[in-house]
Amino acid sequence: MSDIIVPSPADFHVHLRQEKMAKLVTPHVRQGGFSLAYVMPNLKPPVTTTEQALKYKAELEAIDPGVEYLMTLYLTPDLTPEEIVRAKEAGIAGVKSYPRGVTTNSDSGIESYEMYYPVFEAMERVDMVLNLHGEIPSDAKTNTHILNAELKFLTHLHSLHKAFPRLRIVLEHATTRAAVEAVKACGPTVACTITAHHLELTVDDWAGQSFNYCKPVAKYPDDREALRDVIREGHPRFFLGSDSAPHPYDSKSTSTPTQGCAAGVYTSPILLPLVTHLLESFDALDKLEGFVSTFGRRFYRRELNAENTQKIVLRKVGPHVITGKYGVDEHTVVPFWAGKEISWKIVTN
Amino acid sequence: MSDIIVPSPADFHVHLRQEKMAKLVTPHVRQGGFSLAYVMPNLKPPVTTTEQALKYKAELEAIDPGVEYLMTLYLTPDLTPEEIVRAKEAGIAGVKSYPRGVTTNSDSGIESYEMYYPVFEAMERVDMVLNLHGEIPSDAKTNTHILNAELKFLTHLHSLHKAFPRLRIVLEHATTRAAVEAVKACGPTVACTITAHHLELTVDDWAGQSFNYCKPVAKYPDDREALRDVIREGHPRFFLGSDSAPHPYDSKSTSTPTQGCAAGVYTSPILLPLVTHLLESFDALDKLEGFVSTFGRRFYRRELNAENTQKIVLRKVGPHVITGKYGVDEHTVVPFWAGKEISWKIVTN
Repeated sequence: MSDIIVPSPADFHVHLRQEKMAKLVTPHVRQGGFSLAYVMPNLKPPVTTTEQALKYKAELEAIDPGVEYLMTLYLTPDLTPEEIVRAKEAGIAGVKSYPRGVTTNSDSGIESYEMYYPVFEAMERVDMVLNLHGEIPSDAKTNTHILNAELKFLTHLHSLHKAFPRLRIVLEHATTRAAVEAVKACGPTVACTITAHHLELTVDDWAGQSFNYCKPVAKYPDDREALRDVIREGHPRFFLGSDSAPHPYDSKSTSTPTQGCAAGVYTSPILLPLVTHLLESFDALDKLEGFVSTFGRRFYRRELNAENTQKIVLRKVGPHVITGKYGVDEHTVVPFWAGKEISWKIVTN
Repeated sequence: MSDIIVPSPADFHVHLRQEKMAKLVTPHVRQGGFSLAYVMPNLKPPVTTTEQALKYKAELEAIDPGVEYLMTLYLTPDLTPEEIVRAKEAGIAGVKSYPRGVTTNSDSGIESYEMYYPVFEAMERVDMVLNLHGEIPSDAKTNTHILNAELKFLTHLHSLHKAFPRLRIVLEHATTRAAVEAVKACGPTVACTITAHHLELTVDDWAGQSFNYCKPVAKYPDDREALRDVIREGHPRFFLGSDSAPHPYDSKSTSTPTQGCAAGVYTSPILLPLVTHLLESFDALDKLEGFVSTFGRRFYRRELNAENTQKIVLRKVGPHVITGKYGVDEHTVVPFWAGKEISWKIVTN
């Protein structure tokens, strides 16, 4: 029997939604082995003020007080440097930028960055993190499509880093070799999250299989290899952000001729066993602690001390099937790899 | 009111299926404006002998005798040079090669070409056409995936053309600039079909939208532009093969966590108005006759004469919605662009 002990795993990118869906999925953070959730602000309406973020945080704490929720604001033209100062004082950790229209609830997303420079300046000054959804919108005229949208975004990452070298920036859910190399080439203020599902999927897996469809879409085998390589390498600026994104079962399973399915892969309830399984599959089990806990915590200044450390024990119990569904009626969600087998389980002492 | 008269449109790649599905979709060939159907052999079991092909042809003629059915055999290791001679004498037009596992019912597909050289030699001698599904199977080790599978196939096209310069070869359903250029670079014995839907779709359209998902998958905007360009150019070795592929509604609309949706786009019942609409959209309406009739007929030696010409009249009647569904119960099929509007209709005099 092999046990692995991981200190207080932290998921630095997660969607916890609202109302009934929030009640269903928020407890899955701890169920999946995590005690810190970096919470995305793409609600309806988006979380754009300190007040909204604190209210949302209170709602999440009411559902499960056992998790540390790090809150974010949604970058819109209404966000002011003054609000950034207020947000920082209230303990809000970051600001998330979505390019317009590229993913779930991104209609309020940004179109160019220059207009936000006063906000970024304030963020750099008070030390808040800028979280980038790193894709540009598709445009047939420039041959921009969902498979090169991340690659074409990287010039923005470099410009932002150059303009604000002390601003801490996280390129979220990297999916390409180019993105990995771009982040590596940046200074210590730029980091990168990687999801669990992008360590497994390639374009072949989501073609015609809506449960594997998410944004950014999984890319080519060579890109997946680059994500695996940087984890095997133990690079401290690359860490887990699951981008776990629950959608009701029907919106995932079904397209009509005029309406496609929702984009998003849901990993929260099985996250730590899944990541362990995947890292083991590409010989990076010795990098698990760094990837799911230490590296991200260090970047976000949420290092552990004796008091706040929760030791999670993983045990290789042998193959067991991943639960197919959570919830009831229209709030049923299905986790990634439902029906497949993994070998690791969280055991409670 | 603008009318266009097209002489006997010919669809040089179509799936007419079996039994109930065949009864539903075979009449759609004429409904879509076509009087010749080049019929794919990927049935269950595949059509591998002259006898099976003639039986299948008789079944189709019993459903609708008003269409000329050109029959094909499925290339398998059991196909012999003797059978090629028999097939030619029976009027069978071609042999279709599917790489193993890349599309619907391709489990009997080929893995390498050299073993088929005696068959190709016989085909060259008796003048039968080789129809190539031009994709190689995905393989993560070599970074081969569904988006470069066609590109990586093109070396096979060149080798085959070099080994059998007089063998007439059709690269089916080209989707990439590279394929267009490869076919152009070949001699007059190599031609290429283009589907209607690949003139419209890109990768963004089938991501999360199963009704637009087919094999080969639609590629990038620049690839789509290459397909449009070669039609605008009026290149005589590029012509329509719809690859119209009906699947029951549920198998298109729905994925489960363990089963993706069927690959295929169905265009038969609206084919000529759709192609007219698309060619008009990219300023190639003057190439319609060549693309849907003359070019393919010349390559396949099915030229028209006064006796066998059926004049199809297309009229720009203004926007009207494409019918949503055909058939009943489990044999319902949905055409491409269901619910969208096109402007052209076939009018009967």
